[in-house]
Amino acid sequence: MLTMEQINGADAATFARLLDGTYEHSPWVAEQAFGRRPDAGFTTLAALKHALVQAVRDSGREQQLALIRAHPELAGKAMVSQRLTTESAHEQGTAGLTDCTAAEFQHIQKLNADYNAKFGWPFILAVRGPNPHAGNPGLSRGEIIVTFERRLAGHPDFEFAEALRHIHRVAELRLNDRFGVAASRGQRVWDQAEALAAHSDPGYAEHGQLTVTYLTAAHRACARQLQAWMNEAGFDEVSIDAVGNVVGVYRGADEAANVEPTGGRRLLTGSHYDTVRNGGKYDGRLGILVPMAAVADLHRAGRRLPFGIEVVGFAEEEGQRYKATFLGSGALTGDFDPAWLAQLDANGISMADAMRAAGLPATMEAIGQLRRNPARYLGFVEIHIEQGPVLNELDMPLGVVTSINGSLRFVGEVLGMASHAGTTPMDRRRDAACAVAELALYVEKRAAAVADVVGTVGMLEVPAGSINVVPGRCRFSLDLRATTDEARDALGVDVLAELNSICARRGVGHTLERTLAAAAAPCAADWQQRWATAVQALGLPVWRMPSGAGHDAMKLHPVMPQAMLFVRGGNSGISHNPLETITADDAELCVAAFVKLLDGLAA
Amino acid sequence: MLTMEQINGADAATFARLLDGTYEHSPWVAEQAFGRRPDAGFTTLAALKHALVQAVRDSGREQQLALIRAHPELAGKAMVSQRLTTESAHEQGTAGLTDCTAAEFQHIQKLNADYNAKFGWPFILAVRGPNPHAGNPGLSRGEIIVTFERRLAGHPDFEFAEALRHIHRVAELRLNDRFGVAASRGQRVWDQAEALAAHSDPGYAEHGQLTVTYLTAAHRACARQLQAWMNEAGFDEVSIDAVGNVVGVYRGADEAANVEPTGGRRLLTGSHYDTVRNGGKYDGRLGILVPMAAVADLHRAGRRLPFGIEVVGFAEEEGQRYKATFLGSGALTGDFDPAWLAQLDANGISMADAMRAAGLPATMEAIGQLRRNPARYLGFVEIHIEQGPVLNELDMPLGVVTSINGSLRFVGEVLGMASHAGTTPMDRRRDAACAVAELALYVEKRAAAVADVVGTVGMLEVPAGSINVVPGRCRFSLDLRATTDEARDALGVDVLAELNSICARRGVGHTLERTLAAAAAPCAADWQQRWATAVQALGLPVWRMPSGAGHDAMKLHPVMPQAMLFVRGGNSGISHNPLETITADDAELCVAAFVKLLDGLAA
Repeated sequence: MLTMEQINGADAATFARLLDGTYEHSPWVAEQAFGRRPDAGFTTLAALKHALVQAVRDSGREQQLALIRAHPELAGKAMVSQRLTTESAHEQGTAGLTDCTAAEFQHIQKLNADYNAKFGWPFILAVRGPNPHAGNPGLSRGEIIVTFERRLAGHPDFEFAEALRHIHRVAELRLNDRFGVAASRGQRVWDQAEALAAHSDPGYAEHGQLTVTYLTAAHRACARQLQAWMNEAGFDEVSIDAVGNVVGVYRGADEAANVEPTGGRRLLTGSHYDTVRNGGKYDGRLGILVPMAAVADLHRAGRRLPFGIEVVGFAEEEGQRYKATFLGSGALTGDFDPAWLAQLDANGISMADAMRAAGLPATMEAIGQLRRNPARYLGFVEIHIEQGPVLNELDMPLGVVTSINGSLRFVGEVLGMASHAGTTPMDRRRDAACAVAELALYVEKRAAAVADVVGTVGMLEVPAGSINVVPGRCRFSLDLRATTDEARDALGVDVLAELNSICARRGVGHTLERTLAAAAAPCAADWQQRWATAVQALGLPVWRMPSGAGHDAMKLHPVMPQAMLFVRGGNSGISHNPLETITADDAELCVAAFVKLLDGLAA
Repeated sequence: MLTMEQINGADAATFARLLDGTYEHSPWVAEQAFGRRPDAGFTTLAALKHALVQAVRDSGREQQLALIRAHPELAGKAMVSQRLTTESAHEQGTAGLTDCTAAEFQHIQKLNADYNAKFGWPFILAVRGPNPHAGNPGLSRGEIIVTFERRLAGHPDFEFAEALRHIHRVAELRLNDRFGVAASRGQRVWDQAEALAAHSDPGYAEHGQLTVTYLTAAHRACARQLQAWMNEAGFDEVSIDAVGNVVGVYRGADEAANVEPTGGRRLLTGSHYDTVRNGGKYDGRLGILVPMAAVADLHRAGRRLPFGIEVVGFAEEEGQRYKATFLGSGALTGDFDPAWLAQLDANGISMADAMRAAGLPATMEAIGQLRRNPARYLGFVEIHIEQGPVLNELDMPLGVVTSINGSLRFVGEVLGMASHAGTTPMDRRRDAACAVAELALYVEKRAAAVADVVGTVGMLEVPAGSINVVPGRCRFSLDLRATTDEARDALGVDVLAELNSICARRGVGHTLERTLAAAAAPCAADWQQRWATAVQALGLPVWRMPSGAGHDAMKLHPVMPQAMLFVRGGNSGISHNPLETITADDAELCVAAFVKLLDGLAA
């Protein structure tokens, strides 16, 4: 087994030899990484991995292409011997394309030929998958084929970067093997996310899709599972509250002080366990499972911190079953609208009835008692999958959130005049689609001009458009977000002024309805710094970024300091989608960062 | 009764007095028109009408607004007495809003209030309609209310112009009354178009919609009706040919010469009698009915021209029932694809079976015999409704067509990458909709830069777009047209190059399929001039314009000189729509122009 001592004590030649084969036929990667070794050495394996990644990132496209081309073809001669050679033979033993049927073999050869013709380099895939361990044999043939098909359809620039990411992942797994490290806490978190995903609502479960909406049977099964795991982990108090939140408390050192309302203080953390329809396995759930793993560590070590840890699995955040969101975290801030209890779901079942069916009291008295006394809490922290492409593209496992963006949403329609595409001269048109086209490009330009501001026309449609008719109507949506309310509102004002100006100039009308206005929630500076310190302690660089999506932390924001840590998502950070993914190694880094944060608070 | 002699002999004051009341409380219109009287006087009533219209057009917006406001409100005190006052009492006797129900009255008062609030002027509508005569009482209450609702929804600039057009129409009807002229031939054409529209295919007829597709019962009824009218009009030979065309021949002076293949020559004219689904009453049919009216004139006068006149009601142009268009005119040029006979319609009925059911031989031998010997023909002329807004906007009844545009059509899709609208920074997006937005604006700009070129993105859609998702796909269509193939191809090349450049710059892919490439058909210069001379002879200015839509003349173009005359359509020239409309007065001008063309050829 390799050790960090060997790596840090090695001269250049030894360093390269020790890491030989980490990057396929490309010793230059280790050679370049040697120059990045700090005088004091790499503090962690994560730091070494990062240096190797950076060496490739900075090497330029020509070198990167050579690295990709140093890999054999997936469906080349390797296939003939029914083995993959993207990773070494023993690595592949249990995963991948062994024992293909003739039809599968033919299909893969076709994919391979098409891929080579389109991109000019071999298809590279880390077939051992995001969480290889004894019970997890890696990607199945079906998964490999589907991934191949999806990536074949992509843009060359994107696929080039994706190939490099898979090369880094293969290198990471090889390094884990050589250093004899297993990301055991991360693996446990990953496996738990997988196990939770076994529960899914009717109509989705049958198709292998993950959908867990408020208080369904699958939702209640998730709550019971979380409760069981919290008990196993060694939490002192575990319960399901009046809105279905799963609450676990790990008491601080001074037990007596842990009595409300005057007792010792607590760190509040958690995230939601409901999902969108056909969603991902990590969105929300990771922020419950990671603190649970950290508490399990403390419990195993018989360790008590000077403060308690309260982990909440919020029952509802996504607003899928009822027209109300953040029910779980809202209940903790007294922000639960009594009118919600009478709301009906698509099947006509009121929220109150759903609560009673789940054994919850369904009274505002009980729900009101969930409101926390902010003075009791140090603050709220939340770990969440990024749900965006940034960390994945930067090859950074973790990111420190600076602010949860405020947002404005609108839906609208431009009303021009439909007319014959052949017979209506250009200067006599009232083309609704061109007006919206101008707006979309303005939104894009205006948002890009200011850092951390985004604007999107996500819905765009000429209703019943015809090839030979000048569009008389064009529907659109606007989604505008910024890290501060001021930046958000300035964007909104500019976009709406531009819409008016476009419509006046083109002689078309429009309708516009604001459907959402959410305030920005900047993360507390001292708490951001605690996350940054924790990330640095893992040997990783600190990347600060806003959160474009809303999170439970937003709800806690008005009553206590909050701060979030992001972990990168694979597949370009896709979320609200079954392709949402993280690796067990990154989950391990999350647990480690959370433990470092606890250590920092305890110091 | 007024006469043109009185008008042309009058001094300024008398001129104004003679025309007093033509334009509501606005004697300045006649005063201005006096200055436009040529030294030799107005040659026709049409010329006088045109001078009055031009006086208003040139008076500026303030004067025009004063003219509009000189009219009383539709639903004001006039309504109280249950009468309309937009036109004088006796004009309204049989039409419009008399005897409203209380609910209708209330609805109209609401429309009136909304209209005034939106536009700031009274609603003006020529309620006697497009063809007032003893058998035609004008617009019904229902028609008035629907029109009111539609116009209320329009853009103020458009509605301002529409109000002026209705004022001109009211003035036209008043002048017709004073001069004692009835547009009798135009009225007959208009009534025939109405009568033909009584035949409609099942599924449409029940909803009052006009749909006549190839060889249906309604289609065959139309053919029989046209045949009967041709016989009545005095055509010498009338028949229905092997593809269902209705062919009428009015022989020339030298009957013996009218024997094929060596005999006297003929003028070929006509248009199609099939329609699109839920189409208009004049598209195609006008070009059959107008020549029929001219032949009836000749026959009544016992007059023979030095050449024969062959009027063809083409059985099919619109390509609605089978995937084949211009069947009728195509048969005359030998351009009938034998494979078409085996094509199936939506109900699985082959074209050959449909032909046999209609009593047609359904053999290529019979169809082949329809091919004309071009040497026999002087040329082909076609009268057609413009199907565009130009003549209507210019207040010109007739237009001389310079060329039938060539066109290219494409359907395509930009393939970007769907991602979270909140979490994907602007510089990391592959927004498919923004790429198409750029393309749409480029098409608009590029087409506008060259005269008589048009380009349209008529279909535009982000499939299953979400408010919070950056569009990963965006479908679009392209329709590019120009008066010459060179201009059409140059446009196509530029647009496709721009699409490639946009996609390369944005890192997105695209698909593109060309679905149509139709050659331009420039009208023969000498025949254009014949139409121009005819229009001038009616006292009207000559407006030359391309045809953006395709027509049967396009099909005859390769084998003989062709030229077209357009007549303005009301309702902004809308076509392929039940709102398609012309006035009997404009139809009369068409008949008169056709007779002038015949006279010119005969001279």
